[in-house]
Amino acid sequence: MSLSNRNEFNLIERWAEILPAPRPKVLLGIGDDAACLADLKAPVFSCDALIENVHFRTDWMTPRQLGWKSLAVNISDMAAMGALPVAVTVSLALPPHTATDWVEELYRGFADAAERFNCTVAGGDTAKAGEIMINVAIIGELTAHALRRDGARDGDAILVTGYPGESAAGLTILQTQSKPQTAFEKHCVEKHLLPQPRIFEIQAALKMHDAIHAAIDISDGLVGDAAHIANQSQLELVIDAESIPLSVNCEQTAIALGADPLQWALAGGEDYELLLCVDPSAAGKIADLIQTATHTPVHQIGYCRKPALNAAKVLLYNNNQEMPLPESWRHF
Amino acid sequence: MSLSNRNEFNLIERWAEILPAPRPKVLLGIGDDAACLADLKAPVFSCDALIENVHFRTDWMTPRQLGWKSLAVNISDMAAMGALPVAVTVSLALPPHTATDWVEELYRGFADAAERFNCTVAGGDTAKAGEIMINVAIIGELTAHALRRDGARDGDAILVTGYPGESAAGLTILQTQSKPQTAFEKHCVEKHLLPQPRIFEIQAALKMHDAIHAAIDISDGLVGDAAHIANQSQLELVIDAESIPLSVNCEQTAIALGADPLQWALAGGEDYELLLCVDPSAAGKIADLIQTATHTPVHQIGYCRKPALNAAKVLLYNNNQEMPLPESWRHF
Repeated sequence: MSLSNRNEFNLIERWAEILPAPRPKVLLGIGDDAACLADLKAPVFSCDALIENVHFRTDWMTPRQLGWKSLAVNISDMAAMGALPVAVTVSLALPPHTATDWVEELYRGFADAAERFNCTVAGGDTAKAGEIMINVAIIGELTAHALRRDGARDGDAILVTGYPGESAAGLTILQTQSKPQTAFEKHCVEKHLLPQPRIFEIQAALKMHDAIHAAIDISDGLVGDAAHIANQSQLELVIDAESIPLSVNCEQTAIALGADPLQWALAGGEDYELLLCVDPSAAGKIADLIQTATHTPVHQIGYCRKPALNAAKVLLYNNNQEMPLPESWRHF
Repeated sequence: MSLSNRNEFNLIERWAEILPAPRPKVLLGIGDDAACLADLKAPVFSCDALIENVHFRTDWMTPRQLGWKSLAVNISDMAAMGALPVAVTVSLALPPHTATDWVEELYRGFADAAERFNCTVAGGDTAKAGEIMINVAIIGELTAHALRRDGARDGDAILVTGYPGESAAGLTILQTQSKPQTAFEKHCVEKHLLPQPRIFEIQAALKMHDAIHAAIDISDGLVGDAAHIANQSQLELVIDAESIPLSVNCEQTAIALGADPLQWALAGGEDYELLLCVDPSAAGKIADLIQTATHTPVHQIGYCRKPALNAAKVLLYNNNQEMPLPESWRHF
């Protein structure tokens, strides 16, 4: 059965049943003109959309994976600010021929991510369109100070969580051969389809919040996102390409596909790992805090310094040779 | 010049310049992973999208009108809860050939509405798509209790602001003759393109907040939205069709087009007027408060009563005869 055969309000009731019960901070959830929340201390607010054939293809992922990813990319923005998510709204645009089962699976994916990261789908809007669009807006609360892009300091160590490049490796597999052939490739595809926002990682690190000066999630590519911190903090971010951790999954996939894993790590995007600029004397301790609490690896990949001639930018070195910067994801 | 020729980050900077400066409750606006807000008391949160060729056509309205309307329909949800808007995020999906001038005008429309209703465009996201989609999420704060759909009581008077049906009259003109011919028609088209969310009206009414039991904005049509209150409050909403205020603009347009203005008022949708269920002894005073503060007319169009046999619904009378209910807006 497709959406065009069904009464909208019945659908909304059905979808609401799939979602976990609202968390205590959500006093009134789906079903009114707006959701009502408990008082919020230091709220943060953002949005991010996934669009069919731009950000995903329905033949590459299940609706449940898509539901997870739609929330996860937004929850990642909360992680990048040092916040915990509270509630999301979901504005869906769906072609009228969309099967109701497909939408129910999408909601199961929302439910998975909401459950895992302790937030509530508090409202939404559904309309018809020519292509699938999932627009999520999210509100969370800071637990310490805001980890802004303009807070990095001269001398800061640059840390990165996880293994950048795996998501781009997974995307390349989907684009070139559609199905992963090895366990390495399977891991990369899963990283692309089911990104893990680093909420627990940043909360562990925030035990040393005074030492964390800036953060960003590397959703548009490590170098491109590092450039935002460089510009907004008016610093040079000096990145040592040899220090960028490449996982065996990423490297083996690159060998099989004849690709360069470093380019995936530098410019691939959609890793949803965090890049942190921290007091260099605390860098080791912060990495330990994250690794102990979550088992997510953390590596130092460079440092921040005052720019020569005020030219804030990212500098990339490999074997002590300056490398050209890769192009990052273009939204148009 | 179109979006595909331009650097995204330059565009975002340009658009941010068009917007008014963030209001004091927005501590950090556009340009980070998320916006940072001041502590919020009793926040409310919702979203609403406008999609090309579903909710609007670009040959019917200027991008500036579209920008206004995108924010206004969301601000209306705040009015319907009894809240004041604080901040919005805007997630834009645009075809790559979209002219940059067009998007700047859209932002001028966002700026107009943000200025008028004292809120801040605090963040956003832009991506390419086949059709234009404008997804807005909004956060506001209650100033009294939440005006929920489930709060109506047996005996409540049903009030409506403004003149329902004008928006549907305007839409019909756009659909049938594209340009309005008379001042009446022009007014209706403007009502459709530039809806006025009833923020100031509800704030005036909330001086008697104890007497206001439920509210909804009639965006999907008066009868359809009244049915939400009926269902959620488990009441019958008895509406007297003869009491529904039809403006001279709506009536004259109906005469010119050979249409029934009452059908527009009952089922047309997109009026963004408020329907309130209030203590009957306070109904006159509440209407006066709104009219005195804003010059927006308020009329009583019916009352709430306990349903016979628990069948909560809307009952419509005309000349003491029960009328069949019109079909309201279907989202699919």
